[in-house]
Amino acid sequence: MLDTNHIAALRELIGDHAVLTEAADMAAYETGARYDKGRAAFVARPASTEQVSAVVAYCVRHGIRLVPQSGNTGLVSGSTPDVSGTQGVLSLDRLTGIFDLDVANRSVRVAAGQRLSELNARLENSGLCFPIDLGADPRIGGMIATNTGGSRFLRYGDVRRNTLGLKVVLADAEGTILDLASDLRKNNTGVDLKQLFIGTSGSFGVITECVLNLEAVPRQTATALLVPSSPDQVSDLLIAMEASLGTYLSAFEGMSGNAVRAALDHVPSLRNPFQDAAVPDFMILVEISRSNALRTGEQSLDEVLEAVLAEIWEGQLIADAFVGPPHEIWAMRHALSDGVKHRGRLIAFDLSFRRGDVMQFLERMKAELPAKFADVTICDFGHIGDGGVHFNLVVPKHDVRMSDGIFENSLRTWVFDIAVQEFGGSYSAEHAVGPKNQAFYDRYTPPEIRKLAAGLRVVTSAGALGSVKF
Amino acid sequence: MLDTNHIAALRELIGDHAVLTEAADMAAYETGARYDKGRAAFVARPASTEQVSAVVAYCVRHGIRLVPQSGNTGLVSGSTPDVSGTQGVLSLDRLTGIFDLDVANRSVRVAAGQRLSELNARLENSGLCFPIDLGADPRIGGMIATNTGGSRFLRYGDVRRNTLGLKVVLADAEGTILDLASDLRKNNTGVDLKQLFIGTSGSFGVITECVLNLEAVPRQTATALLVPSSPDQVSDLLIAMEASLGTYLSAFEGMSGNAVRAALDHVPSLRNPFQDAAVPDFMILVEISRSNALRTGEQSLDEVLEAVLAEIWEGQLIADAFVGPPHEIWAMRHALSDGVKHRGRLIAFDLSFRRGDVMQFLERMKAELPAKFADVTICDFGHIGDGGVHFNLVVPKHDVRMSDGIFENSLRTWVFDIAVQEFGGSYSAEHAVGPKNQAFYDRYTPPEIRKLAAGLRVVTSAGALGSVKF
Repeated sequence: MLDTNHIAALRELIGDHAVLTEAADMAAYETGARYDKGRAAFVARPASTEQVSAVVAYCVRHGIRLVPQSGNTGLVSGSTPDVSGTQGVLSLDRLTGIFDLDVANRSVRVAAGQRLSELNARLENSGLCFPIDLGADPRIGGMIATNTGGSRFLRYGDVRRNTLGLKVVLADAEGTILDLASDLRKNNTGVDLKQLFIGTSGSFGVITECVLNLEAVPRQTATALLVPSSPDQVSDLLIAMEASLGTYLSAFEGMSGNAVRAALDHVPSLRNPFQDAAVPDFMILVEISRSNALRTGEQSLDEVLEAVLAEIWEGQLIADAFVGPPHEIWAMRHALSDGVKHRGRLIAFDLSFRRGDVMQFLERMKAELPAKFADVTICDFGHIGDGGVHFNLVVPKHDVRMSDGIFENSLRTWVFDIAVQEFGGSYSAEHAVGPKNQAFYDRYTPPEIRKLAAGLRVVTSAGALGSVKF
Repeated sequence: MLDTNHIAALRELIGDHAVLTEAADMAAYETGARYDKGRAAFVARPASTEQVSAVVAYCVRHGIRLVPQSGNTGLVSGSTPDVSGTQGVLSLDRLTGIFDLDVANRSVRVAAGQRLSELNARLENSGLCFPIDLGADPRIGGMIATNTGGSRFLRYGDVRRNTLGLKVVLADAEGTILDLASDLRKNNTGVDLKQLFIGTSGSFGVITECVLNLEAVPRQTATALLVPSSPDQVSDLLIAMEASLGTYLSAFEGMSGNAVRAALDHVPSLRNPFQDAAVPDFMILVEISRSNALRTGEQSLDEVLEAVLAEIWEGQLIADAFVGPPHEIWAMRHALSDGVKHRGRLIAFDLSFRRGDVMQFLERMKAELPAKFADVTICDFGHIGDGGVHFNLVVPKHDVRMSDGIFENSLRTWVFDIAVQEFGGSYSAEHAVGPKNQAFYDRYTPPEIRKLAAGLRVVTSAGALGSVKF
């Protein structure tokens, strides 16, 4: 239990209602999106950068560890306290005040606590959008702290690429406010300090305000489901589509037959485009899009897609193709994650590879996994256009092997070792680092890199912040 | 003069021929692209990362300051030694060995000493290119150390966005080699350390190897010169073109009448598209491009451009427009820099602004500069699509005010103060920081940012490297 004087002091700083200590009030802040539950000493909910600074400064001076929490939708336990009951949660959920749109600059300045859905709703009439497309609905600060990717990375890149500026509170005794919230697109006047706070899970500072790049909302879209002739052809298919479509291509997503079947079973309203219900082993969702309304004389995107698919068909890269309405095809893509979860106990991996290696890794897993770990189903899907794979393994619901952590840990280590050490891949493509994968950070990060990262963490926050140890 | 024992020791490490000490041999390494000449104690030319490490470790242990030098085409004196004769130049010009193309990943691994032109020549048959388009022909390491932009930033972004990985030598007593040269497009496993070395002018470490993003070579291009109805309309013109053209739009460059006239006078072979030689006050170069070959039934890009210009004409955003062959229109754009230089004594600025502020800044300068600084001609051009302006001022050739630095410095300070303090712009949009603008780094960088940057510099290199003091 934390000294009640501290609670009183924090309430003095940001208001009585803004510091929660009742178990019922704190429960939602103590529980992560996917994993286990921690216990908070308190939840502080500052409503401005200055209030964040005051809370951080107080906690640094009194040795109270703070875990910054944004939308709490992350998948590596990065935003929840541990079980000690001594850590405070610093929630951004009241940090929603600022919304400053600059149409000419194609940018917006927002407080870090704004939800992605709320941001895009407020942008709706501008013809612009923040182009990071996710299944979850995080708050912006957390998206930056984890550097999320999403389904349209291929076209728009990650959050890093779309962040122009940040305001950050450092974990020093003054709660120093670092104003890096420039709205310039091009500015090379020293170290680009904002990069330190992108993807570092709130361990280097608390992000309170952001300037984001916006893109024109696509006004034409066409989608297709492609069945590659063989796994070997997927890479050539991607190359061919990029050459033919250039920046039109906005998604190139892989979906395993197992994942698609799980989605179809779980959501009966989904339309199954495959005749006699024979779902192929592997499919690619392709989306092309552009921002202008269709002009007189311009080919529609459906025509463009048909023409490109005809070329590709000619080259024998695909065995089958279904051009269908975007909402139907995306509905299936978006149902995969939930569908897979309902198949049993999920052991999820967020991997990435050189793009040419994705299918080789998947083939390797299909060949070797069954002999090593019986009764485990591979239900992968992911973002082949950028090398990302949500490599999901499903274990039967009441499997006794899941009663302790030994089986899961040995499975995880086996998969990660192959992905990281043999393929040069990543064990966290777009979910960043948290307590859930801290051990793998320690395992795979070379000592000279760990040393430099730890040095930086000391320079920024004296290691007083967050749930990760870089 | 440096102790000759050091020279002998360095020769022992990387070979006799690889350490230059004769004045004639060193001259080219001591002279920058635009500014004054320094004096080197020696020029070391290692041919591998390991040799760079050996040289750096030796120099750190013996307190010899090294200035890394890449193509030496930079414009802020960042790659040349000072006049003391005590600094060594660490040239990357023999670091050219690696060229490892990964077509499926759309990436290439290169040694940092490769020239941009050489890289693109080697990529020619792949249908891919490194999409940073510059007037100069730097080496890749220097492009990363300065985070160059260029004329197609609007479509492809800067070097930072196109850098997947780096190998770096730190300035510690071991010359630690930091292997951050991942070829993954998505990887969030800790601090993205490579960001520290991008745009920091070689002060944080020596870049020896890089993995770069590649893009499909455009196979269709159309260009036009537009005359906006008024400076106020330029921003709306950009918004309208982005909405109509989306990612087709690959350049939106501003050119002042003064700069264009200077180019036409200097290069008589340029075609002047303006009737009766009346060059307008301001023009926009627009380029649209795509990577596929023209398909049957597809509108050509000239047709697309004509259609979009008709819409824009309708909206009264432009007073005149010339659609012309790309090579002719780009020839004029590329002649601006040289043309302006021949008008007199050049005082060059590399500014950037929120995109909507560019024309306002230029109008402000036109209104106020003449009264403050007589006989100074504004010959600006630049990258309005990303807010960048090469704000060039030309002073008559034999102007006595240029005999010492007082006039130039007072002019620079006046312009920078307005750009940075009143407009929130940047004093170095794409040329980074070097001795030439160190004073402005000190003037405009808030103390809390300087403090953190200095802390990082100590953590990475103990401040032992480069010509800049962050």
